[in-house]
Amino acid sequence: MLNKVDINIEKFINDLKDDRVDEFYKHLSSGKKLRAKLILKIADNKADKAVVLASIVEMIHAASLLHDDVIDDANTRRGKKSINALFGDKSAIMFGDILYSKAFFELCNFPLQIAKSISEAVAKLSIGELLDVELSKSFNDNIEKYFDMIYKKTASLIEASAYSAAFLAGVDSDKFALYGKNLGLAFQIIDDILDIVSDDKTLGKPSMNDYKEGKTTLPYIYLYKKLDKDDKDRLLSMFKQELNHDDKEWIRAKMQSSGALKECFELVHKLGSEALNSIEEYKNSDLEKIIKDMIDREY
Amino acid sequence: MLNKVDINIEKFINDLKDDRVDEFYKHLSSGKKLRAKLILKIADNKADKAVVLASIVEMIHAASLLHDDVIDDANTRRGKKSINALFGDKSAIMFGDILYSKAFFELCNFPLQIAKSISEAVAKLSIGELLDVELSKSFNDNIEKYFDMIYKKTASLIEASAYSAAFLAGVDSDKFALYGKNLGLAFQIIDDILDIVSDDKTLGKPSMNDYKEGKTTLPYIYLYKKLDKDDKDRLLSMFKQELNHDDKEWIRAKMQSSGALKECFELVHKLGSEALNSIEEYKNSDLEKIIKDMIDREY
Repeated sequence: MLNKVDINIEKFINDLKDDRVDEFYKHLSSGKKLRAKLILKIADNKADKAVVLASIVEMIHAASLLHDDVIDDANTRRGKKSINALFGDKSAIMFGDILYSKAFFELCNFPLQIAKSISEAVAKLSIGELLDVELSKSFNDNIEKYFDMIYKKTASLIEASAYSAAFLAGVDSDKFALYGKNLGLAFQIIDDILDIVSDDKTLGKPSMNDYKEGKTTLPYIYLYKKLDKDDKDRLLSMFKQELNHDDKEWIRAKMQSSGALKECFELVHKLGSEALNSIEEYKNSDLEKIIKDMIDREY
Repeated sequence: MLNKVDINIEKFINDLKDDRVDEFYKHLSSGKKLRAKLILKIADNKADKAVVLASIVEMIHAASLLHDDVIDDANTRRGKKSINALFGDKSAIMFGDILYSKAFFELCNFPLQIAKSISEAVAKLSIGELLDVELSKSFNDNIEKYFDMIYKKTASLIEASAYSAAFLAGVDSDKFALYGKNLGLAFQIIDDILDIVSDDKTLGKPSMNDYKEGKTTLPYIYLYKKLDKDDKDRLLSMFKQELNHDDKEWIRAKMQSSGALKECFELVHKLGSEALNSIEEYKNSDLEKIIKDMIDREY
């Protein structure tokens, strides 16, 4: 079914009848398609429409990543050269705008509730990116601000995807929205954990890059609260700095010994349980598997 | 009525409940609002809805200019500091995405034909920007390519605005679309002429900037066709170069003596007449005035 999503996106791209757009699309690296998977699993009784909706959401997600990579001056995306690295920032910004507008054009064919839910999520997503930039200016130990940011930046589009797919399927869309929201929050926190516990090879980029870039993710917020005055100062002194091997080992050791990482994992499990509880009555083993695969992985 | 559009846009911005977005909006320079004026004049029998549609289209136009300014690394916009100059490229790209997505969200409340027409125009507009970048790589004397580019980059959103307003008003939307398309093409060609004939002060930027930036606009395409071999070579040698006073005077003199400018003006008048012919039966003096004010100005 994910293959059908790729074919459908390609059809949408071809509709635009522009050689450059075709060329850019060929170089777009394809991801795990979490959002598409979610939509296809929730609206499996409306398979054809689900494929189109999944294509739209993946185009929106791709557009947001194109703009992200320009903003971060990123050279690679999912192991391939990024569009901005290959064709320049101008092309990447415009290709993002083209994907967004084609996605909105196709979204018009869906019920108003779905079109509004997805377009509202795109506004939240962009505001979330702004918040991320803002929060990265100084060390942030405010948990509420962190959650507001990751909800908007990551969870809102996953929430809207689940809501919209449930609406298509004719099941309780608010319950599925809650599933999607908690899945999205857990997904982002796991990403934040992986930046700390994984090695460079697994990540495909240098580990502990978040803290260097000014991102005080949840593990750092928890860690900061648990440290004594001297260690707090040491952690703060590393903020936005190039970390050497000893710095990284110190942070990793403190993340373990302080219990900060454990607290993150507990929260991820809690979010996963809440996600599953909200759709318990539907006994959808595929949706349970999405949560379990994400959480019970090797770290 | 244009004042109501500003108030409505501010309401849409406030809906987003984000302090940074409010701050960016305060620094957004406000333009002539050609597209809003057009919508208000065409759908004057549906004033309330026309104000909302005009707000949506002006937000889309503002979003495209935000991304344009990042792409061109522009420091000013309409005499004020640009958002990218004030707050950085990241903020300008995201603020553009936020305006686009809020505009699409509000567009969902309009009939399908309108939502599709406007979102299709946004895809064209972004493809037009890509074509503009592509054409600027080398001297272009292909008139078809020039018209395809300015249709997409400039005329398509004006065309969609006129179409949508006519649809709202319950008049023949195809006729008004043709009015809008020809108005948009004439508008862009006049802009291209002004770059050549105006002085720096009137333009608010250095004159003859287009050719320096690699843009072979219509006056240059016509001029090239009319020059002899030596003059063709001289014109080509100036492409993408910093032009000195003598170069500029030579181009201006040749534009006059060759009849290239005259040919541009004739085309602008022809497009203006075609625009007016397509909506003749409606005897809308406001729409006639928009065309006449635009064409019969001082150059």
